Amino acid sequence: MQKQRVVSGMRPTGRLHIGHYHGVLENWIKIQEQFDCFFFVADWHSLTTEYAETSGIKGSAREMVLDWVAFGLDPSKCVVFEQSQVVQHAELNLILGMITPVSWLERNPTYKEMLDNIEQRDLSTFGFLGYPVLMAADIILYKSTRVPVGHDQLPHLEITREIARRFNHLYDCQVFPEPEALLTETPKLLGLDGRKMSKSYNNSIYLSETAEETAAKIKGMVTDTQRVRRADPGDPEQCVAFNLHRIYLPQDKQDEIIPACKNAEIGCVDCKKILTQYLNERLAPFRARREEIAQDASFVDDLLAESSRKAAQVASQTMQEVRAALRV
Amino acid sequence: MQKQRVVSGMRPTGRLHIGHYHGVLENWIKIQEQFDCFFFVADWHSLTTEYAETSGIKGSAREMVLDWVAFGLDPSKCVVFEQSQVVQHAELNLILGMITPVSWLERNPTYKEMLDNIEQRDLSTFGFLGYPVLMAADIILYKSTRVPVGHDQLPHLEITREIARRFNHLYDCQVFPEPEALLTETPKLLGLDGRKMSKSYNNSIYLSETAEETAAKIKGMVTDTQRVRRADPGDPEQCVAFNLHRIYLPQDKQDEIIPACKNAEIGCVDCKKILTQYLNERLAPFRARREEIAQDASFVDDLLAESSRKAAQVASQTMQEVRAALRV
Repeated sequence: MQKQRVVSGMRPTGRLHIGHYHGVLENWIKIQEQFDCFFFVADWHSLTTEYAETSGIKGSAREMVLDWVAFGLDPSKCVVFEQSQVVQHAELNLILGMITPVSWLERNPTYKEMLDNIEQRDLSTFGFLGYPVLMAADIILYKSTRVPVGHDQLPHLEITREIARRFNHLYDCQVFPEPEALLTETPKLLGLDGRKMSKSYNNSIYLSETAEETAAKIKGMVTDTQRVRRADPGDPEQCVAFNLHRIYLPQDKQDEIIPACKNAEIGCVDCKKILTQYLNERLAPFRARREEIAQDASFVDDLLAESSRKAAQVASQTMQEVRAALRV
Repeated sequence: MQKQRVVSGMRPTGRLHIGHYHGVLENWIKIQEQFDCFFFVADWHSLTTEYAETSGIKGSAREMVLDWVAFGLDPSKCVVFEQSQVVQHAELNLILGMITPVSWLERNPTYKEMLDNIEQRDLSTFGFLGYPVLMAADIILYKSTRVPVGHDQLPHLEITREIARRFNHLYDCQVFPEPEALLTETPKLLGLDGRKMSKSYNNSIYLSETAEETAAKIKGMVTDTQRVRRADPGDPEQCVAFNLHRIYLPQDKQDEIIPACKNAEIGCVDCKKILTQYLNERLAPFRARREEIAQDASFVDDLLAESSRKAAQVASQTMQEVRAALRV
């Protein structure tokens, strides 16, 4: 039986932090074994919000792909490509735009939320309004049948399904499958300051930083803010360190620390040292690999060029069917 | 000095009538001598309004190009290509959409008018809203400096100029010239029933019809509706035949007929015969040429394929500059 096809992309935001890793990349690395996967750098998507400041996009894409590959995406098992190198994304985007009612886009909850909340940038552009169309093109261009999404992204997937359905209906064909969700549970990862880990909050631990940098960051990390003195009992549920313990410490170690924290038998300094040790140990081999790969200055460019050609072959096949169905 | 570049397109509506010829094509044939011209079949534009019924687009494109070439567009003097064969139109369209405020599109007078007036088709699509973006991409992709337009199309050209300016400004470059209008005066051509000549009114004389078909149509054409009997004096200003005399008859012949009509010295039947003779004579060599060209079933396909490659070379050069400016 043929493997189901999965398509997923990330906007190039630069070096990934551990929140990205556990939120998305770790899942990609897992599903590359089960599915026929196409993972892409969504650089054209960056333009929907970053059109006024594009100078960092290319460099960010390269850093991100280094992280992808060093931490476990295997280009021999999946296709790792760059959206802007596969012009068929633009072509299908144009065609799907012709059949997509503006009302489907205006009612997109993320659209309304971002328009209302983001004040530093002017998002009232045609491209931003249309990003679900581009997203639909990205996915169905490869006839994807499964799309890894969190619950919050289900409305986007629904627009993709509606657009695919509308195309098949209007042109009386079955060119596009309606992709289904591959729901992924992602741990809620807190940053050094207790807020959600995010590049823009400057509270992140990066995959590619050194063990020393990580150690220094964890040293300065907030813990249970109610535990003022060493002798005060702590509450692991209110502690960023423990949020990370859950991911990086073996279960028996966690079971040991929880009561020790609650009984003030272990202090935050020691607790953080344990976290630092496990976290750095876990990342060490990947960090070494990243350093090695990064020595080859053209590694990412070569990989993206070659894989984008592979992606373009599949895309071009779909576009032939699209043109045949459209008769244009 | 390098010739200025002109870009202009027509939606594929099928065989052209003499209104198309005198309204657009005749001007193209003239300016191909003075400018570096790119003329294209705007087949993707057809999708903005015809997305629900696309089966006729390809055939219409072929009929239209036969008319273009038979009646005087010379592919050795200008580039005659098909939009959908130059994927860079879609790519630039995507990028320009990112920097185009939705408000510029919503205030486009044609957009509002068509949304309000066209009831048979649902035009509330993303693609229809964005057609001025695609139009801008079509034009500036070739760094056009002049665009042949009538007064009513000036608002479209203005959006194109604004988009070009915004791109240059945002990316601190001079990739795109701001194209200027090449204003064309077009005679108001009436159809057989006295309304504007239009395919949808079924009142047209086609370039490619036979002399006999034209003769029969002119025979049934309305003239001055106030002139009921042969002996009544006529008013050439109120007569469709005279509207066409202005184009097809030599001045001395017109000067002779005007008083003869006003004094009821010539009847409508004779007057129409004169028109038929001159009109058919004028079109005869082109009609013969069209028939000849049409014998080669692959003429249009071959021409469009070859010229679209030429267009794509220029387009690809521009896109390199666009990518360099954008750094994506």
